[in-house]
Amino acid sequence: MAKIAIVGAGLMGTATAWPLADNNHTIRLVGTHLDAEAIKSCKEKHFHPRLRRKLPQGVEPFYVEEIARALDGVDIIVSGVNSWGVHWIGKTIGPHLKPGQLIIAVTKGLETDESGELVILPDALASELPEAIRDRVSLAAIGGPCIASELAGRHQTCVAFGSRDPDAVKLLSSAFRTPYYHVRPTTDLLGLELCAALKNAYTLGVGLASGILEKSGGVDEAEAYMHNMAAATFGQATAEMERLLEIKGATRSFAYSLPGCGDMYVTCMGGRTVRLGKLIGSGRTYEEARNIMAGETLESVAIIGTMSRALPRMVERGLIERDELPLMRALIDLIVLKKPIDLPLDAFFSNIGM
Amino acid sequence: MAKIAIVGAGLMGTATAWPLADNNHTIRLVGTHLDAEAIKSCKEKHFHPRLRRKLPQGVEPFYVEEIARALDGVDIIVSGVNSWGVHWIGKTIGPHLKPGQLIIAVTKGLETDESGELVILPDALASELPEAIRDRVSLAAIGGPCIASELAGRHQTCVAFGSRDPDAVKLLSSAFRTPYYHVRPTTDLLGLELCAALKNAYTLGVGLASGILEKSGGVDEAEAYMHNMAAATFGQATAEMERLLEIKGATRSFAYSLPGCGDMYVTCMGGRTVRLGKLIGSGRTYEEARNIMAGETLESVAIIGTMSRALPRMVERGLIERDELPLMRALIDLIVLKKPIDLPLDAFFSNIGM
Repeated sequence: MAKIAIVGAGLMGTATAWPLADNNHTIRLVGTHLDAEAIKSCKEKHFHPRLRRKLPQGVEPFYVEEIARALDGVDIIVSGVNSWGVHWIGKTIGPHLKPGQLIIAVTKGLETDESGELVILPDALASELPEAIRDRVSLAAIGGPCIASELAGRHQTCVAFGSRDPDAVKLLSSAFRTPYYHVRPTTDLLGLELCAALKNAYTLGVGLASGILEKSGGVDEAEAYMHNMAAATFGQATAEMERLLEIKGATRSFAYSLPGCGDMYVTCMGGRTVRLGKLIGSGRTYEEARNIMAGETLESVAIIGTMSRALPRMVERGLIERDELPLMRALIDLIVLKKPIDLPLDAFFSNIGM
Repeated sequence: MAKIAIVGAGLMGTATAWPLADNNHTIRLVGTHLDAEAIKSCKEKHFHPRLRRKLPQGVEPFYVEEIARALDGVDIIVSGVNSWGVHWIGKTIGPHLKPGQLIIAVTKGLETDESGELVILPDALASELPEAIRDRVSLAAIGGPCIASELAGRHQTCVAFGSRDPDAVKLLSSAFRTPYYHVRPTTDLLGLELCAALKNAYTLGVGLASGILEKSGGVDEAEAYMHNMAAATFGQATAEMERLLEIKGATRSFAYSLPGCGDMYVTCMGGRTVRLGKLIGSGRTYEEARNIMAGETLESVAIIGTMSRALPRMVERGLIERDELPLMRALIDLIVLKKPIDLPLDAFFSNIGM
């Protein structure tokens, strides 16, 4: 049995406590400064208010001010922060790290460096760690379709754990794996992280269709929705993910398996990204939609921003043609360049054709 | 402008009248013996009762008894029958065919020959044509995500047209293409047909999750659905489609584009296949579910039956390993061998792993 600290008491980080508790690990749940209220409730009532569930027995809650004590002697740290917290968590846990510790992140996002090269979040986190420890801990990440409330409800869930360190990812997999939490380990951390981020961006495109329907008057007397358009966008999104994995030298099949279209499917079933897509599809500008959803984390927007910096670099280096990835380019036009919606359906599906 | 007969006045066949009418073709809609009532309504009120729409102007309805007159002088025949009607339509139109005519089918299904080899439906149809004409007409098929009521509502729709005859498929594409009906032509008819059929079978697997949720008491107080499991099944389904396309020498990328996961996405949004999956997932045997849905066409079941005959042949020929395609095998166990539900989640995602 291991000692495990979950840092970040949001939905997803906290939900990992269920399989970990079922495996009888010692679990400490550390809130960030944004989670103070949740931790208060956890301490007083052993109840997580946003997850709306009692914590599993034995999970010990900590305020962020108590992090030194929470991290003392742990084997594994789960990074439960969102993509805006990646640098913070690196700086915060860095001074407490010990050689041999494993860090696994639930965070989904993507950054670029100054030159426009894509940087996956485990590397962004690592860049904040003190140099003396950086190469003496192992970083990993979780990908695949996992809604937190389902995991915390012990519903059947399949995920992939990725780390460049094969021993670390095997160890982590067996620490988390339960009869309802099915973990596939992989050393292709890059491929896993690309999928986890990209499917978020693309889901915004899929979400546009229901907004466009709403704007055109909604479901008509013959019960026609706008699923055909959403499905076409979904198909193009999967094909573009496959192409991006190829460009980056990652495992292409991730796009058409659990981490890519599997995770995108669950993301399309509801949540912030489809809501944002629907708002924009219905005619709101991005700014208006952003205001309506004030206070909510919109990873999809950040990832589209990242891609707007990365694509020109890829073109420059001759890795892609200017007319490739028409859906991602349309999303960039919409979100970054604030142009009106224009999904170029006739440019989709260049893989089909003569 | 062309003269076009649509044979089979079901939802999908009839819906093709909208783009065709918008392109000013002469259109004749011929019911089968199952469509007599719909044709009566079309003749008397120019209203299709199941589609719940007035027909586009100029579409002329015909009873099946009037088929000779309806087919006289046409350039294109749209086969609008379901997979049970494929042999019937071949026999029925055969005697009326003229060299140079184009036949395009909306039908989704898959058969096997006596030896267990897969046979796509355009070939099944062709096998019923008189030998003298068989090679003097061109057969094509439509794939991709297209709900009929949306097409008839002129909602944005992307499809692929496939034919081994490149001239035929180009001609057909331009006859049907409109600003809302985006057509990609391909000569990989096999790949297109495999996707169209397989995604139906696999959608039954995706549909199981919501039934399993229902059986376990439904959505709980923390609003946990069973989307994680559905998404995992969706991801595995896409990966298995890619593998089956590879085995058959078809375009692998169709699986992770419009014809494969794109079409599967729309199929998962509702309809008979997910309803059947839900019924079985909730604890009904296949027979019980079949009775509840009496009278409804269940292509998914027929396709799973087809695959139960094709897989042993593929193993025998050394094309696949016995443990490949675990999801398809689970569907065969469930539907053909009438075993209890057992989705082998731990056998999924062999593409991820070390």
